[in-house]
Amino acid sequence: MVNVNVQDSVLELLRECGDVISGEEMADRLGITRNSVWKAVQKLRQEEYEIDASTNRGYRLVSESNVLSAANIRRRLDQVARGVAIDVRSSVSSTNTVLKEIAEKGGREGMVVIAQQQDQGKGRLGRSFHSPKGSGLYMSLLLRPNFSAEESLAITTAASVAVAQAIDRLTGERAMIKWVNDVYFHGKKVCGILTEAALDFESGRLNYAVLGIGVNIQEPPGGFPEAIREVAGALFGEAVPAGARTRLAAGILNRFFEFYRAMPDRKFFMAEYRNRSLLDGLEVTLRQGNGQWEGTVLGVDDQAQLLVRLPDGSRRAFGAGEVAIEKNNLLRQLQEKEREQQKGKR
Amino acid sequence: MVNVNVQDSVLELLRECGDVISGEEMADRLGITRNSVWKAVQKLRQEEYEIDASTNRGYRLVSESNVLSAANIRRRLDQVARGVAIDVRSSVSSTNTVLKEIAEKGGREGMVVIAQQQDQGKGRLGRSFHSPKGSGLYMSLLLRPNFSAEESLAITTAASVAVAQAIDRLTGERAMIKWVNDVYFHGKKVCGILTEAALDFESGRLNYAVLGIGVNIQEPPGGFPEAIREVAGALFGEAVPAGARTRLAAGILNRFFEFYRAMPDRKFFMAEYRNRSLLDGLEVTLRQGNGQWEGTVLGVDDQAQLLVRLPDGSRRAFGAGEVAIEKNNLLRQLQEKEREQQKGKR
Repeated sequence: MVNVNVQDSVLELLRECGDVISGEEMADRLGITRNSVWKAVQKLRQEEYEIDASTNRGYRLVSESNVLSAANIRRRLDQVARGVAIDVRSSVSSTNTVLKEIAEKGGREGMVVIAQQQDQGKGRLGRSFHSPKGSGLYMSLLLRPNFSAEESLAITTAASVAVAQAIDRLTGERAMIKWVNDVYFHGKKVCGILTEAALDFESGRLNYAVLGIGVNIQEPPGGFPEAIREVAGALFGEAVPAGARTRLAAGILNRFFEFYRAMPDRKFFMAEYRNRSLLDGLEVTLRQGNGQWEGTVLGVDDQAQLLVRLPDGSRRAFGAGEVAIEKNNLLRQLQEKEREQQKGKR
Repeated sequence: MVNVNVQDSVLELLRECGDVISGEEMADRLGITRNSVWKAVQKLRQEEYEIDASTNRGYRLVSESNVLSAANIRRRLDQVARGVAIDVRSSVSSTNTVLKEIAEKGGREGMVVIAQQQDQGKGRLGRSFHSPKGSGLYMSLLLRPNFSAEESLAITTAASVAVAQAIDRLTGERAMIKWVNDVYFHGKKVCGILTEAALDFESGRLNYAVLGIGVNIQEPPGGFPEAIREVAGALFGEAVPAGARTRLAAGILNRFFEFYRAMPDRKFFMAEYRNRSLLDGLEVTLRQGNGQWEGTVLGVDDQAQLLVRLPDGSRRAFGAGEVAIEKNNLLRQLQEKEREQQKGKR
């Protein structure tokens, strides 16, 4: 563990110098060991500071353009997303929790909190979202929609499409969406979205919505926790492209705001959502209250309901949150289908 | 200021004794002055402990049945409201804030928090709700509606009717409702309702709603704060009937749960709401966005929109939260109308 202050001091020195500076000189000037300097440099590289090192001459800060920072994300934003105010933090309980507090105190639409890691990352239904440092993008966005609460429900749908498109752009491959809002890549879940909102009872609108997005960029060291290992995946294996988190964050914000600005109109993302619907054609078992249905998924309708053909040939629409999909062989079907689709594309 | 522990000790002693006990004996046994005993007795009486005092013999605890306590409220609950779990606290920031925290941690429907006073009582639109000790009923109720968010918006409407009916019962007079959800009595606002809710984006339902109700029972010593003095009123002057807060709390819960159990059906309270609509017949100026309308209020429709006849004879419905009613002479009209109605009834 490198002391954060040492890391900051080394960074400051590299910036000041602007050219090559030897490890020995840095150690002397900061009153630390050369080994501490080396460790700090390694940490900085993990955070995407590009630092050259040559054995005999020393270290040189080449570029900071890939570092996960507000400035670097902003540089990649399209006009439509420029209204955001980004705050990158090293560690938080959960970006949603932090931003909800900000929202309660009057924070404005477009505030974004991104964390290097979350200690209590939140998933849906009170589940947790594993959020170790360096492995993912953990981002929340504050919105104050000027349309009805009913219409606001589509924010999560729009976000899932935005994430899928941003992943496509970063990876050159195609991400899918498992109804309702899980983004899948290579047959595994790589993104969870949790929107939390406060309803205003007079206007029927939201006081605010906090849209939380967690994307697994790389499998954490030691792998995913046992409980989610079968389902969870990451965008990259060993080799993560430079600035992946920064580019992904900007990509998501660009795509999302394009959709959001047109809301409550959904036409800009519902077609795209349907094109990426991972469950289409699969055999599913659905439970709703005491009832149980088996059938083939036909698709998703404009209200984001799942359309299923039942054995008697009839169609039935299932609303999210009202039904549970039995897992049985769903995962296997999903992954087979994904593999076929990836093959088909090559 | 009487030390709360002294007050508790005096109360305990009165309970133990069960009969008359002299001030001197109490002072001796508790190691305090007779004056402290007397002060504690006064405080207990303010909290509606019925304590007899005779100069030569001493004090006797006659009854605790009017004290604002969970047990005393429960005794007055109808079957429909018996599922509640009531927690009476001496002082909180805001009952809504306390209950929202409980809700976030999984608290169940029917949990009720009542406070003797609130330090940061909350009103709508970020306003505060003046909540000094002894002057009002400050109560919040946790709900987990199993119907849509859209349908849940009527919770506040149902609550305003429940409060108005409970006030009628307590006072023998008629409370009115100023659109949207302010309860008026003798031409002044005596109750504010603030519902806060978390929306679940998958189900389109609420994770929870916290319904906060503040009723001014008596004008606080020194009067209402300057900013609200013109508008704010209380149910009683000098003489507050015994157990007013306890009876009002139970009355509100009884009426509210009757309405709530039938929701999303609104028929049990919308007719009653309309009967009490204070704005009917008044001349109002409404602002919506950049537009401004003048007209006569015709009433409130089933969606709780305000129906207004415009000067050209057309009708227009205004949704709550989208419009602001200009104050100009509204307050005067309201109070005149209220006086006439009260006269008419006598």
